[in-house]
Amino acid sequence: MVNWKEKVENKFDRLVDIRRYMHKNPELSFHEEKTHDFLLSELKKLDKLSIRERVGERGIVAKLEGNQPGQTIAFRADFDALPIQDEKDVPYKSTVDGVMHACGHDGHTATLLTFCELLHEHQHLLKGNVVFIFQYAEELNPGGAKAMVDDGALDGVDKIYGNHFWSGHETSSIKTKPAEMMASPDFFEITIKGKGGHGAKPHTSIDPIVIVAEYISSIQKIISRHIDPIDRGVITVGKIDAGSAFNVISDTATIEGTVRTFKPEVKDTIEKDLERLLKGLCIANNATYEFNYRRGYPTVVNHDAQYNVVKEAASSLNLTYEDISPMMIGEDFSYYLLNRPGCFFLTGSGNEDKASLAPHHHPMFDLDEEAMKTTTEMFIKVLEIEGVL
Amino acid sequence: MVNWKEKVENKFDRLVDIRRYMHKNPELSFHEEKTHDFLLSELKKLDKLSIRERVGERGIVAKLEGNQPGQTIAFRADFDALPIQDEKDVPYKSTVDGVMHACGHDGHTATLLTFCELLHEHQHLLKGNVVFIFQYAEELNPGGAKAMVDDGALDGVDKIYGNHFWSGHETSSIKTKPAEMMASPDFFEITIKGKGGHGAKPHTSIDPIVIVAEYISSIQKIISRHIDPIDRGVITVGKIDAGSAFNVISDTATIEGTVRTFKPEVKDTIEKDLERLLKGLCIANNATYEFNYRRGYPTVVNHDAQYNVVKEAASSLNLTYEDISPMMIGEDFSYYLLNRPGCFFLTGSGNEDKASLAPHHHPMFDLDEEAMKTTTEMFIKVLEIEGVL
Amino acid sequence: MVNWKEKVENKFDRLVDIRRYMHKNPELSFHEEKTHDFLLSELKKLDKLSIRERVGERGIVAKLEGNQPGQTIAFRADFDALPIQDEKDVPYKSTVDGVMHACGHDGHTATLLTFCELLHEHQHLLKGNVVFIFQYAEELNPGGAKAMVDDGALDGVDKIYGNHFWSGHETSSIKTKPAEMMASPDFFEITIKGKGGHGAKPHTSIDPIVIVAEYISSIQKIISRHIDPIDRGVITVGKIDAGSAFNVISDTATIEGTVRTFKPEVKDTIEKDLERLLKGLCIANNATYEFNYRRGYPTVVNHDAQYNVVKEAASSLNLTYEDISPMMIGEDFSYYLLNRPGCFFLTGSGNEDKASLAPHHHPMFDLDEEAMKTTTEMFIKVLEIEGVL
Amino acid sequence: MVNWKEKVENKFDRLVDIRRYMHKNPELSFHEEKTHDFLLSELKKLDKLSIRERVGERGIVAKLEGNQPGQTIAFRADFDALPIQDEKDVPYKSTVDGVMHACGHDGHTATLLTFCELLHEHQHLLKGNVVFIFQYAEELNPGGAKAMVDDGALDGVDKIYGNHFWSGHETSSIKTKPAEMMASPDFFEITIKGKGGHGAKPHTSIDPIVIVAEYISSIQKIISRHIDPIDRGVITVGKIDAGSAFNVISDTATIEGTVRTFKPEVKDTIEKDLERLLKGLCIANNATYEFNYRRGYPTVVNHDAQYNVVKEAASSLNLTYEDISPMMIGEDFSYYLLNRPGCFFLTGSGNEDKASLAPHHHPMFDLDEEAMKTTTEMFIKVLEIEGVL
Repeated sequence: MVNWKEKVENKFDRLVDIRRYMHKNPELSFHEEKTHDFLLSELKKLDKLSIRERVGERGIVAKLEGNQPGQTIAFRADFDALPIQDEKDVPYKSTVDGVMHACGHDGHTATLLTFCELLHEHQHLLKGNVVFIFQYAEELNPGGAKAMVDDGALDGVDKIYGNHFWSGHETSSIKTKPAEMMASPDFFEITIKGKGGHGAKPHTSIDPIVIVAEYISSIQKIISRHIDPIDRGVITVGKIDAGSAFNVISDTATIEGTVRTFKPEVKDTIEKDLERLLKGLCIANNATYEFNYRRGYPTVVNHDAQYNVVKEAASSLNLTYEDISPMMIGEDFSYYLLNRPGCFFLTGSGNEDKASLAPHHHPMFDLDEEAMKTTTEMFIKVLEIEGVL
Repeated sequence: MVNWKEKVENKFDRLVDIRRYMHKNPELSFHEEKTHDFLLSELKKLDKLSIRERVGERGIVAKLEGNQPGQTIAFRADFDALPIQDEKDVPYKSTVDGVMHACGHDGHTATLLTFCELLHEHQHLLKGNVVFIFQYAEELNPGGAKAMVDDGALDGVDKIYGNHFWSGHETSSIKTKPAEMMASPDFFEITIKGKGGHGAKPHTSIDPIVIVAEYISSIQKIISRHIDPIDRGVITVGKIDAGSAFNVISDTATIEGTVRTFKPEVKDTIEKDLERLLKGLCIANNATYEFNYRRGYPTVVNHDAQYNVVKEAASSLNLTYEDISPMMIGEDFSYYLLNRPGCFFLTGSGNEDKASLAPHHHPMFDLDEEAMKTTTEMFIKVLEIEGVL
Repeated sequence: MVNWKEKVENKFDRLVDIRRYMHKNPELSFHEEKTHDFLLSELKKLDKLSIRERVGERGIVAKLEGNQPGQTIAFRADFDALPIQDEKDVPYKSTVDGVMHACGHDGHTATLLTFCELLHEHQHLLKGNVVFIFQYAEELNPGGAKAMVDDGALDGVDKIYGNHFWSGHETSSIKTKPAEMMASPDFFEITIKGKGGHGAKPHTSIDPIVIVAEYISSIQKIISRHIDPIDRGVITVGKIDAGSAFNVISDTATIEGTVRTFKPEVKDTIEKDLERLLKGLCIANNATYEFNYRRGYPTVVNHDAQYNVVKEAASSLNLTYEDISPMMIGEDFSYYLLNRPGCFFLTGSGNEDKASLAPHHHPMFDLDEEAMKTTTEMFIKVLEIEGVL
Repeated sequence: MVNWKEKVENKFDRLVDIRRYMHKNPELSFHEEKTHDFLLSELKKLDKLSIRERVGERGIVAKLEGNQPGQTIAFRADFDALPIQDEKDVPYKSTVDGVMHACGHDGHTATLLTFCELLHEHQHLLKGNVVFIFQYAEELNPGGAKAMVDDGALDGVDKIYGNHFWSGHETSSIKTKPAEMMASPDFFEITIKGKGGHGAKPHTSIDPIVIVAEYISSIQKIISRHIDPIDRGVITVGKIDAGSAFNVISDTATIEGTVRTFKPEVKDTIEKDLERLLKGLCIANNATYEFNYRRGYPTVVNHDAQYNVVKEAASSLNLTYEDISPMMIGEDFSYYLLNRPGCFFLTGSGNEDKASLAPHHHPMFDLDEEAMKTTTEMFIKVLEIEGVL
């Protein structure tokens, strides 16, 4: 029997090296040229891998086949960074102005690559195959997952697992839930077109600011009255842009916002009602409008059997495990789960001593790098439970 | 020269008698049977009068012709009472439960009848003719004035004057203004039809209470944004009737309200916008509606020449005179002014010592009866200025 | 082995007789005098029962002790009716004007009484004891459950089960769910005190109708913005009472409504925010208010072990079983579950052929009486699984 | 008798030259350095004038004394331009990017300067004195008028007159009105401070966008309910600045707006109510605020006697005259009228053939230069009626 715990421990320096290298060299979503090439060159060092580069646009899919037949299990890591200025004072601080790995994707990728290297060393043990999916552009709609799936990333794959580090949870705790785990996030932009004029002559104009104010109040009732209280949904108007001078009635008012839902039918209701309320209000006020609703990632829905595998893995490893409430954020891991059975889980990475408690997307975000070992062990345990290792 | 002041003084007991008789025997608008008959019997005692009874429905028009040719000047008094419980403790308190002369119409009629009797005694002095219009149903739309005008009340009349006692002004002060003096009051009733349901299942219903709330907020901007700030208007929702149980979503919500305007085009804007805002809001919320807008009396618009006659009369009599701001209440004297030149004016009747300061339509309303003498003198002076006396 | 199915089948006439007798003689919550006495006289015919009458106010608790030691399992039925006019055309139609068993409580009680009689016949089989709780006043806050629990209804009881017929589910299907099953329903009544006045003079008054309209719109955001989207809640304003005349600004406006929640902390947020929004709005508008919030039944929270017993019972009986979504209605069965482990479940009673599809609290509500047999079998099976039978 | 009509006609080229020179060389309010110096050098050519330069900050006051005693009558012209891009295709188009005489102040000044030159030629006719006030910075609060008055611009002046060209009126028509003629315009800026957060977690934030929307709806009722419908007022929110990303709840929302009133007590009500509604709404929503209200120019209130002089002047010159409704725009001519009797009037300058119908403050604004002759004749006629000429 392999002592996987020790094996993983021995890979810690490698984990840290890769993660810190990536942390210093972040690239924005859909611009991950160097990252792609770096990962490719590292993977090419592993001669038993079959590698597909530039999957979708900039993804990499590597496959390690075992000598004995069995299932093909995929693991996925994302590798894009965010337009945030790194404000940490650490040796591995981002070297790119205004770009930063503020969501832990560097850790995801370091873990997956190291895990790949480790399995590569033990390829003879595999009863089946393992697929390593390195994904670009998770942070930015339409994301890289859909394009990679469309480009065959899941070909031959039976099941898929994924991990996200989470600074809000204690390092190495594991959390997930059955069924809906992460919301589907949409975007909307609305322009109300009135008729500008002098601020002292409201009756000669159609004031879009008064209309947009009514609209924002009015859409509150979509959540409070129009959807089943048993369901969930959020509508947030994040931005208003209206008028340029205090004493001039402007022609238009524009708002942008986000919608979060778990069920497609709730999303449908919200999209339809957002427009119908807008249309009615514009008729009421002799105004017109533009309505632009862009659907984001689908809901992340875990499959029951794989959810149980993750729970069992955590239990076998004596890790703290807890079901979580559904999360209102989105993840394009949902595309893999629409196509294959699987489960997405969170590995805690928050540790006061490691100064890794800042929330995701924060300029002070950091990772307790110990968590990378936990996730690697989880991946190995998942393979064991699935009978591939 | 007749000493009119003395003549009027001598009529004071008669003024008071008639007024108090009427005060004890009030009748509601459109139900003034006994009042009509009482006035008719009093007028029939005056043999030089030509009398038309039941003009419109229940009005009386009496004409006193002079021996010399000249103008025909009309004066009008209204004689209906209100559905208010008299709460005064006076010998002439209303004897009819829940009905009361709480607006001074008893005083208007006592003054006109006494004035008629006085002129009848001096008929030989008249250079022209005087018409006495006793009107029913001023308080209740559609009022008696329109029907009386339609039925010929103004036939042969050149000019018309009218008076209203006013408890908010000091006894015997005279006030009026040129042009728009009193607003046009309209009535509206709106029903929003949603779809009822269980209070715990808002998504299966269309909640008319949430819609009506938005509507009431939304129509505020008709006044604040849709009409010229130079113009005036009031929209008041006086009543909401919605729902019958705290935990049931009702099918409908109904509101009733009033609109006050001076200019027809402002009234048009408000009526149109009340409906367009309703229509838009119902489209927005998948509801339907009933919209019922009933136009009330037109604006009371004084004519410049007659306004000047009233001012001159007040000045000749050394009465306190002041122009007032336009009043938001309505009066169907407007129908006479739409058909003949004329002027409506207010005679103050408020006097702390006479306990006559309660506002009109109040259960404690009373008249300083001295004011009736002042108005009689005003009427005589108007005839003098017009050259009829 | 007793053939319980056959035994229950043989009791069908009895089930129907009791149920129809009660259906013809409904009594309102807190007024169930005759019903109490009828049940008492029936129970007194069973000589092995120990009976406590007038528990709480008008409940009955009967206990059947076995000869062998074991658990004490309680079952509960409620027996009050509703202020609804029976509009069915059936021989057992309500004989009381405006009062009707429109929620199936007659069936609950007929089932429990018959079940009691049946067990009484087989008392020698009991390994432990069974408690039969006949409860008054479930429909009306504060309900009978709390008073009965306070008065010792659960003394000596180890576990409790309850059933509700449900016309929206197919006859004899069983549904329930783990944890939160039915919401906690609260009541609120709010009066906004402005300052009345003439409809044409809004500036001299403080218009409570405009304020209440803003308030109703404003509280929508409690659900849409203030509570965690993962949680649930409903706020419904069911009734507005404001103003008495279209052209008068009233002094006050009053609304009544209901709040439904599952978690106490969500309830706390809603109660606090309803008042804070009211207070702020009144400060904003120079108004004052009265705020009256009355908490209703707690959330019905099933216990995991007993939930599993119910599921297993349904499965053993080959009944259709399904977990349901949490329900937004309330039930004072919650008080029993706050004090003892237990589970509440629904037995479907909807059957087109039996004209029993009308929703609860509807004038056409009826029961597919077959369902009473199913529930009786369920109760027996529960006792078997619990080891008492 | 001087033929003033002919004299003015002969000055037309001079009027046009000065006006066009200024039109090509506009300067923004409080930056009129070159304009000040240009006017000064022109005035210095007139040896009978006594000149005070840099009055207030950048104004000029010139005085022409007659040989005979009499009243001292002042006339005022303003000379600042606007931050608007001239889009006309004319030889005298503005040469300064983004700056333009889009309100006719060039014409006001050309008229006053030419009028000064003309009177200078006829100084021997004066029975009394004439003061020429060239004012900077009319367009921008706090304006130049107050500073010039404080700096003695009205010393020794008995009465003051002023003119504004008006493209909305037919060339050479004269309009003004007694009493309140132009509104008092105020500025307000409000920041609502909530608590930012993730757009998917509204319950952890205090969303200032939802609050500001309610506020904008809520303040509509200040006009519709809080001020006497007989009075007038406008509140316009011209600008909202809130949020920077569609999916982020921002910390604050800021609005800017203008208030227009005629009566100080209405202004007081609006200012107080804007803040009280804000305060209440912030209490309601756990938010805080900054409220900044800056009072602008007072109301332009014409004096009766001087209003009659203007009307008589127009009539003597056979010009079309009409009383206008009060205007909702502001003018710092009000400061002169607070200190001396006087009247402000409008000379029409709209003429389709001269392409001078564009509204004021429009990129295509132009003047029918004929109007400058009319105003000059009006000024002369005013002096005649006042007995100074």
